[in-house]
Amino acid sequence: MDVVTLGMVGLGRMGGNMSRRLARAGHTVVGWDRAEAARATLSDEPRAPTVATLEELVGRLPAPRIVWLMLPAGAPTEDILQRLVPLLRTGDLVVDGANAMYRDSQRHAREFAARGVRFVDCGVSGGVWGLENGYGLMVGGTDDAVGTLEPVLRALAPGPDRGWVHCGRAGAGHFAKMVHNGIEYGMMQAYAEGFALLQAKEELGLDVPAIAEAWRHGTVIRSWLLDLTAEFMRDDATLAAIEPFVADSGEGRWTAHESIELGVPMPVTTLALMQRFTSQGRGDPANRLLARMRQAFGGHAVRKRD
Amino acid sequence: MDVVTLGMVGLGRMGGNMSRRLARAGHTVVGWDRAEAARATLSDEPRAPTVATLEELVGRLPAPRIVWLMLPAGAPTEDILQRLVPLLRTGDLVVDGANAMYRDSQRHAREFAARGVRFVDCGVSGGVWGLENGYGLMVGGTDDAVGTLEPVLRALAPGPDRGWVHCGRAGAGHFAKMVHNGIEYGMMQAYAEGFALLQAKEELGLDVPAIAEAWRHGTVIRSWLLDLTAEFMRDDATLAAIEPFVADSGEGRWTAHESIELGVPMPVTTLALMQRFTSQGRGDPANRLLARMRQAFGGHAVRKRD
Repeated sequence: MDVVTLGMVGLGRMGGNMSRRLARAGHTVVGWDRAEAARATLSDEPRAPTVATLEELVGRLPAPRIVWLMLPAGAPTEDILQRLVPLLRTGDLVVDGANAMYRDSQRHAREFAARGVRFVDCGVSGGVWGLENGYGLMVGGTDDAVGTLEPVLRALAPGPDRGWVHCGRAGAGHFAKMVHNGIEYGMMQAYAEGFALLQAKEELGLDVPAIAEAWRHGTVIRSWLLDLTAEFMRDDATLAAIEPFVADSGEGRWTAHESIELGVPMPVTTLALMQRFTSQGRGDPANRLLARMRQAFGGHAVRKRD
Repeated sequence: MDVVTLGMVGLGRMGGNMSRRLARAGHTVVGWDRAEAARATLSDEPRAPTVATLEELVGRLPAPRIVWLMLPAGAPTEDILQRLVPLLRTGDLVVDGANAMYRDSQRHAREFAARGVRFVDCGVSGGVWGLENGYGLMVGGTDDAVGTLEPVLRALAPGPDRGWVHCGRAGAGHFAKMVHNGIEYGMMQAYAEGFALLQAKEELGLDVPAIAEAWRHGTVIRSWLLDLTAEFMRDDATLAAIEPFVADSGEGRWTAHESIELGVPMPVTTLALMQRFTSQGRGDPANRLLARMRQAFGGHAVRKRD
């Protein structure tokens, strides 16, 4: 196996664990995070030394340098990419592992290419389970750049030859990750609606956690998301202490935009996104109007707030 | 292990393979199907003898008799249940493994209970893969009846202690299976929309079959349905020869009805069902009206049929 030395910028929950997985596979990861506390979490990992500045990180890497960014998409990533421009040389390779908008990644690839620096966009799935199970990796870029990165991808993925894919040219990795997350929205909503119906069907005395557990085996709907769901339902079937508020990050919205731009019907994906907005209270203005309309035309009572 | 002898009525794709799985586990299955060809498929299975009539099947079973029906829900199942009434005795046990409406199963349980015959409703998932992998089984009925059936359930399930669940009282098994299929509609639609968006994104040169394959490992959306999808996409990425017509069976509609009856919002599940109706051409009348309205108020051209 090729052993490489690469830089990891951003040592949060994702970047920190990915550094560990790479270090344990025999690679060397020079890590930097602007937060000293994040850097300190890697102090027990001998093949993942951390440094105090971005400049020091670049200085510690052999040419051609590989710098992997694992930062929030948008301004934090843009800021570091700008700071990297004067530090990198022809042939170096930058990887953006954030959940970035694929059009930003296409632009970054063009900008770096103009300076002879290779750029790879990599969608990363797996969350907090990736350290143990490996990460699903969706990669966009040139054959040459992805070839250079291959030893790193093989170590991060669940297996050397599975769970990572060169999706297509620059932007393709983040596009695939965007679609992955869109599918995730719809799947999650489908499970949640089904379990809500089971919970509401009081007359049958249903053992909902036991049903969730059994569904994991032999059924058409078995999945990793169902495994997770069955596990937390075993400890807490009603989730009474959880606020029914579902956050959304950018990728669900981008998927809906893309559906509209390409004219590809994605009703369930889009509706799952809309349900999240509703859970956030963003449906309240429309619902107030509806209640008021019913009162206006039919004299129906409205509920008043305290 | 307790070894039992039971009768299997209906030896089609499901009942035939379930008989095989039970026979291979050491149980004896006396099989009957009104079609001689279906009976003949079991001729190589020594522990699954077939008989020529329903009366003969009941006559070959030791008391208390266990008769498992694996027939289409509705009239075929109703017919056999009526024919079983005079053939069974107090303590016997009837299992309906069809995708039956749970309210029918509640009624059947009451009718048989009035004659001292036990009734169990069992939702069966796993399709053509069940013979090899085992079947997901969702069971409704009394503790006593399910206890009698346990050796059979343990052999049919993916493992003796996993993949089968006593969901609750009579009707609970078919209710859980109904919800399982409702979730399936939503999950399938979510995947299908995502893959359709990937296929439509021509500018990125996406390798869609390779993305499907990679998503099976390490991602949040990995599942058995994705495994199946990646497998058929490897052989045929575009599916150009497949008519875009998606059938629906009863369970999606029942789930939508139940959502309305209980007032539990299931927008994605219901919409996935509506998309199937649309795929069947049932949206054409509304679309003709929409085209005509646009013409009427705005003079927009309509497309004419030959």
